[in-house]
Amino acid sequence: MRTFEEILRLVDEQLRALVLPENPKGLYNPIEYILSLGGKRIRPSLLLMSANMYADDLSPYVAPATAFEIFHNFTLLHDDLMDKADQRRGQSTVHKKWNDNTAILSGDVMLVVAYQQLAHIDPTHLSKILPLFSKMAAEVCEGQQYDMDFETRADVSQAEYLEMIRLKTAVLLGACLKAGALLADAPQEDADYLYDFGVSLGIAFQLMDDLLDVYGDPTTFGKKIGGDIVCNKKTFLLINARNSLSEEIRKELDSWMNCQTCKPEEKIAAVTTLYSQIGVKNLCEEYMQIYFERALASLAKVKVDDIRKKALRGVAENLMSRNK
Amino acid sequence: MRTFEEILRLVDEQLRALVLPENPKGLYNPIEYILSLGGKRIRPSLLLMSANMYADDLSPYVAPATAFEIFHNFTLLHDDLMDKADQRRGQSTVHKKWNDNTAILSGDVMLVVAYQQLAHIDPTHLSKILPLFSKMAAEVCEGQQYDMDFETRADVSQAEYLEMIRLKTAVLLGACLKAGALLADAPQEDADYLYDFGVSLGIAFQLMDDLLDVYGDPTTFGKKIGGDIVCNKKTFLLINARNSLSEEIRKELDSWMNCQTCKPEEKIAAVTTLYSQIGVKNLCEEYMQIYFERALASLAKVKVDDIRKKALRGVAENLMSRNK
Repeated sequence: MRTFEEILRLVDEQLRALVLPENPKGLYNPIEYILSLGGKRIRPSLLLMSANMYADDLSPYVAPATAFEIFHNFTLLHDDLMDKADQRRGQSTVHKKWNDNTAILSGDVMLVVAYQQLAHIDPTHLSKILPLFSKMAAEVCEGQQYDMDFETRADVSQAEYLEMIRLKTAVLLGACLKAGALLADAPQEDADYLYDFGVSLGIAFQLMDDLLDVYGDPTTFGKKIGGDIVCNKKTFLLINARNSLSEEIRKELDSWMNCQTCKPEEKIAAVTTLYSQIGVKNLCEEYMQIYFERALASLAKVKVDDIRKKALRGVAENLMSRNK
Repeated sequence: MRTFEEILRLVDEQLRALVLPENPKGLYNPIEYILSLGGKRIRPSLLLMSANMYADDLSPYVAPATAFEIFHNFTLLHDDLMDKADQRRGQSTVHKKWNDNTAILSGDVMLVVAYQQLAHIDPTHLSKILPLFSKMAAEVCEGQQYDMDFETRADVSQAEYLEMIRLKTAVLLGACLKAGALLADAPQEDADYLYDFGVSLGIAFQLMDDLLDVYGDPTTFGKKIGGDIVCNKKTFLLINARNSLSEEIRKELDSWMNCQTCKPEEKIAAVTTLYSQIGVKNLCEEYMQIYFERALASLAKVKVDDIRKKALRGVAENLMSRNK
């Protein structure tokens, strides 16, 4: 079994070895740029760790693993454009550094480049992985659409929110794990359990993101604390607060949300206090724990020795104890 | 052999039978909308006609044929957004009817839906078609990038222009024809000649588009005559005019191009007269003829009976005698 560090090295090597056409530069330079910004490379690592449970030689799987990482970065590129975000990982986003049209078209070709990585898979496995990848890709778009729809809706339920983050964030993790298993000829049942493991882990991961944005440590959290509160982002916390409050306290929350002239720090402090008082912080932590345990239960059903699951369990535990 | 009308019916049936998820509506309705606007469906028809040269049962090929049509419409959707075009086939473009973000995200998922249609191909053929499709898709994006790059460049050469339209327009026709041949187990040589046939035909087709925009019959041409002239679009005509003129006449052309207050009709009339006088109309017709003959020469090399090539030759001739 490879260590997480060894697997990460395989991923980085493959990404560095990625040869894009030299021209037109306006099309391909933004792809090199966004891939160079780094990131945890968690998705391709999950694919390789999953495959490593069934196979020792991981070389046939690094190209498909890269496909998932390129796809992930494609979604970041287009999401940042749609969300009009200026920064990504402390650097200018593509549409800021270049322009909107560049972000659209470079993103498009990036999605194609992801599929080109899949084409390295042998015919038998390709016909299993291609539909899995495309279904995931469509679902991630659906999740982004729901997320945007929620911006203009006041009545989003907790169930709708959980479904949105399942689509936008979690199915990609599930698909990476399932793809790794299928590529390494795992039994279909194992592949399905690994998918479930990834989806539950992904939901727990996103709930933690919601929490960290409010309660994270400003010295270690990569972004400014309270960003979601400032822009009224419909998170698990906000949705549950709005759905559970007395008329009176809800009005207080609404007045902060509608206030155009309030200072960000005051709004963040007030809403954070409110979240803690009414118990949505606890509720979010509970749900995070539920999904994390659900993930571990799915992993437990996978029919390989515990020793071969150790790396995946370690990553899951690390993700849940992260502070950024 | 199926007639063109029979093949068109197969394409339309398959497009109508396309089942997209019902929700989220903001994501999938724009796809149904743009596919409902019609179009000549020339690309999937070319794929099926190519396959029909080698196979009588076309049913295995209608899903992949649809993939190419959906891809084509995806490029229209994103190109219209990048070009800020208000109308497509006499109707509002997606970003006008909805908004920019909808056009970005619906386009993205449309590209994924195209790949989902490819997943219906059996494993052996899939591993040939997937790289062909992705290479074509990347090249079409490259062509669009060059087209946008040309907008801000004054020194575009004829060779660069021909390469741009090869990428943006022609390789898609070539890939359709090659895919049809490969799917129906044509010899590799035939598949390559059919690709060349499609690429040359596509270049001739685009040169005719450039001509029709200026010299088309206003009563049959779908769009307003002179649109390319009004917006200084770098066409074969404009590029050759600028590269061949005496300093004096070039200044006249430039003054029309830079004139912000000129009436469109006057600008169109003046530039059209100039094109005819200096012979770029003739030059464009010559090049169109050269590429059309090159296309027929490639088709002639395909090793099937002439009777089985009749449908494809008919389509090529129709495309070259169109008036819209």
